[in-house]
Amino acid sequence: MEINVERVKEIRQRTGIGMMECKKALLEAKGDIEKAIVILRKKGFARAKEKMSRETAEGLIGSYIHMNGKIGVLVEINCESDFVAQNEEFRELVKNISLHIAAANPRYISSEDISPEVLEQEKEIIREQFKDSKKPPEILDKIVQGKLGKFYEEVCLLDQPYIRDDKISVKELVATHIAKFGENIRISRFARFELGKP
Amino acid sequence: MEINVERVKEIRQRTGIGMMECKKALLEAKGDIEKAIVILRKKGFARAKEKMSRETAEGLIGSYIHMNGKIGVLVEINCESDFVAQNEEFRELVKNISLHIAAANPRYISSEDISPEVLEQEKEIIREQFKDSKKPPEILDKIVQGKLGKFYEEVCLLDQPYIRDDKISVKELVATHIAKFGENIRISRFARFELGKP
Repeated sequence: MEINVERVKEIRQRTGIGMMECKKALLEAKGDIEKAIVILRKKGFARAKEKMSRETAEGLIGSYIHMNGKIGVLVEINCESDFVAQNEEFRELVKNISLHIAAANPRYISSEDISPEVLEQEKEIIREQFKDSKKPPEILDKIVQGKLGKFYEEVCLLDQPYIRDDKISVKELVATHIAKFGENIRISRFARFELGKP
Repeated sequence: MEINVERVKEIRQRTGIGMMECKKALLEAKGDIEKAIVILRKKGFARAKEKMSRETAEGLIGSYIHMNGKIGVLVEINCESDFVAQNEEFRELVKNISLHIAAANPRYISSEDISPEVLEQEKEIIREQFKDSKKPPEILDKIVQGKLGKFYEEVCLLDQPYIRDDKISVKELVATHIAKFGENIRISRFARFELGKP
């Protein structure tokens, strides 16, 4: 099978993974770019997971001012070495995540940051919507779990579809960069101010 | 008495008040720039105070990234009209206050934002320092008040000496701009991230 170099380059650009690995994945996917990316993402994720427990003491504070000063974002993204922090691509990642936060307005970083009270309230709202449906409790529980997943995608930064490529989540965007840099990366905090809104 | 135009210009630049008023103040101060500024500041403050209760629904979100991404600041500064918000000098003020926050690391906007617990603790620390001094209680109270003032100057943005001109406080810097624009201006919130520090 002939491998189109342009396709390999596109995959490399979208995943940040080395040319050889991209070529292998494209062969494995029989020339289908999307499939090749899925293959690489799975591998990338596997590699990223090993690193996700490593300490991150370096990093960058980034900011983004949107709409002529009506919205502003401040974010701290950590990595393991100052070498990576000063890398142009890491700076680009910080910029893109700031921009994402400005546009997508997350309330939390991860679903683990939601307080038990808010979570319970959300479950209550979902149950209320289905209270006349006469579904058995085990089905209702599944519905609640599914709807909660949707809720996380709305309010949790890591679960939100990435604003510049909604086929991946912000979590996956970060994982791709963990694989790329070979270092753990963590979004540790953010602030988002919208003019006149608390 | 002859009035030096350069001096009038310097006063105007430092206070933002009209040339005529600067000239009058310089005459009143017998050519002494610092005295003239004090005179103007008193007038400016008087004018600013009238405006300090007015509603501020417009403004700008500003940010400042310091030390190559190790410190970042996000600030919301409000004014009354979008016309003032879009003014170059207002933008400059937002920038300067962001820079000040990055450098001076305030913990609160105003002394009113300090919780009663923290305030009580601070008073306790001061009293402890003087417990062997055998000063009468009314003197001790005065000392506590004085030391509290110093504490405010350390931790409250509005009471801090302005980093680019420590002869004025940030409160006075803002008051000067209230006088200049003829609109109320309010620093409503800020976030300051320092890499790896909570």
